[in-house]
Amino acid sequence: MTMPRKGNLMDVRQDIKVLDATIRDGGLCNNFDFSDEFVSDLYRANVKSGIDYMEFGYKASKSMFDETKYGKWKFCKEEDIRAIVGENHSDMKISVMADVGRCDYKTDFLPKSESVIDMVRVACYIHQIPAGIEMVEHFHSLGYETACNIMAVSQVNNDQLMQALEMLAKSSVDVIYLVDSYGSLYPENASELAKKYIAAVEGTGKQIGFHAHNNQNLAFANTIETMSYGLSFMDATMQGIGRGAGNCSIELLVGFLKNPKYNIYHLLKFIEKHMPVLREQGVHWGYDLQYMFTGLLNRHPREAIEFTNDNRTDYSEFYKALLDNH
Amino acid sequence: MTMPRKGNLMDVRQDIKVLDATIRDGGLCNNFDFSDEFVSDLYRANVKSGIDYMEFGYKASKSMFDETKYGKWKFCKEEDIRAIVGENHSDMKISVMADVGRCDYKTDFLPKSESVIDMVRVACYIHQIPAGIEMVEHFHSLGYETACNIMAVSQVNNDQLMQALEMLAKSSVDVIYLVDSYGSLYPENASELAKKYIAAVEGTGKQIGFHAHNNQNLAFANTIETMSYGLSFMDATMQGIGRGAGNCSIELLVGFLKNPKYNIYHLLKFIEKHMPVLREQGVHWGYDLQYMFTGLLNRHPREAIEFTNDNRTDYSEFYKALLDNH
Repeated sequence: MTMPRKGNLMDVRQDIKVLDATIRDGGLCNNFDFSDEFVSDLYRANVKSGIDYMEFGYKASKSMFDETKYGKWKFCKEEDIRAIVGENHSDMKISVMADVGRCDYKTDFLPKSESVIDMVRVACYIHQIPAGIEMVEHFHSLGYETACNIMAVSQVNNDQLMQALEMLAKSSVDVIYLVDSYGSLYPENASELAKKYIAAVEGTGKQIGFHAHNNQNLAFANTIETMSYGLSFMDATMQGIGRGAGNCSIELLVGFLKNPKYNIYHLLKFIEKHMPVLREQGVHWGYDLQYMFTGLLNRHPREAIEFTNDNRTDYSEFYKALLDNH
Repeated sequence: MTMPRKGNLMDVRQDIKVLDATIRDGGLCNNFDFSDEFVSDLYRANVKSGIDYMEFGYKASKSMFDETKYGKWKFCKEEDIRAIVGENHSDMKISVMADVGRCDYKTDFLPKSESVIDMVRVACYIHQIPAGIEMVEHFHSLGYETACNIMAVSQVNNDQLMQALEMLAKSSVDVIYLVDSYGSLYPENASELAKKYIAAVEGTGKQIGFHAHNNQNLAFANTIETMSYGLSFMDATMQGIGRGAGNCSIELLVGFLKNPKYNIYHLLKFIEKHMPVLREQGVHWGYDLQYMFTGLLNRHPREAIEFTNDNRTDYSEFYKALLDNH
């Protein structure tokens, strides 16, 4: 699809928003077991650095998931968020994620007027779009900003994707996310997809976001390439922490952006204090060969995560085995 | 510049050549001190994997550099290469690099008919283009394939670059390289530069190559993006080994390419046997924050390499200091 880039490498685009998903996607690496100091320092670092949104975690169903088996950010209770942010007297907004089929959305959300949460992001697979839209409309009626993240887009049939985008374009959703769950997109096809999302919401005032995974070491590249065609909500995490190969590193993204409201220094202070400690605690994330293979094969990273957890380094055997059970 | 992509994500482009620069750029990380087993295994793995060129190192001046202070691949004597490859009965070609001003090119090269070397790559800065062309013509007259690598292109004035490309287009050189020495290019401006190189050699039959550095974790992305506009000689190294943040990883590049002659399996066997050993020996390379900073600031990585060698992790202080002496 022919569509010019929006802005250039020196411009400031005021529509761009950076969303820090460190706790939410990073929580998938450590069962959401972050210290209060970590989360509190992260909040302060993000505010000082001009980050636009900070996602605190999931609003998972407490009837489906045992609260004693996860850190509190899998559930994001109002009081736990407030213990960190108070009334959130800052320019940064707060988001949480709600998975279709894994949350009690009718009972677990306060009206926006009573909550410190600003945005609810609904995550769904393509076949769950009607359920996702029902949730979006509910959150919208409660007064929240809303997003809908269509996961695993690299495995989605194009006709179904076009239908889903058409349905979302007619809904109340504020932001639609292109999500490269398996890290299998290249800048070239990620950009083509981005143009389709942009075209689908033309004239509606809705924004498009991008959530990258770093399986082929392309998370940052895909983020800035899709952004150049008009995507505006860009997810990133501290040092790219996130499931498997992780996400786009927030320090790379903030380094790239030209808007003077962003300041990388406080992100670096946070990173040098906290991220090596996580590594020492045995929390694994980041690009490695096993994740490259699942990205290349357009598959869920679960076997690569297992390979990592087993401390294996026989990459060639693992690659052969992946081809066997394809 | 408007120029369509050449081929697509499923095509095989027969013009594409992969050049393994593991020993040459990786040698900058360990003073070219690779074991014979390493180099011999690398040669065999590259041949089995369908790699097109393997670069053995530099042909540095033995009157300027003390042979006792470097590994042999800084000098690439004919007998040392032959000890690994014999007569090189394979489809893979052998290259060496010659730096302008740092080699005795008039005395240190045999006629091609007596050498197992196939290609000589001349590396120069923009102000050394006349000297580079003189060397190219000399190597061409000896019967070698030739390349000219214009280094640090991100700091080059556009008018001078256009003049240099015009001069090279009239020379005997076979391949002209776009070299992102500081890892400061993004896919967007790397591609714009690539188009200028392509346009400059149109109709001459010359090829354009790309040599990436991974300071902003964009080495692979920039390699495949510039390639998509017609660049065809792509440098890569095992696990991206190379000075500072390193280069494009050959396993990512070979994973991406669709030509069935390439086979990633033997690269993986090599990597799992040899690369962790280099890390254990204390050889440093790869993306980290300090290299991101110098890439972002479009500067030589020497201060970041020093930061790494000093085992420092005070990224925020280092970043502040870099801004101070800019």
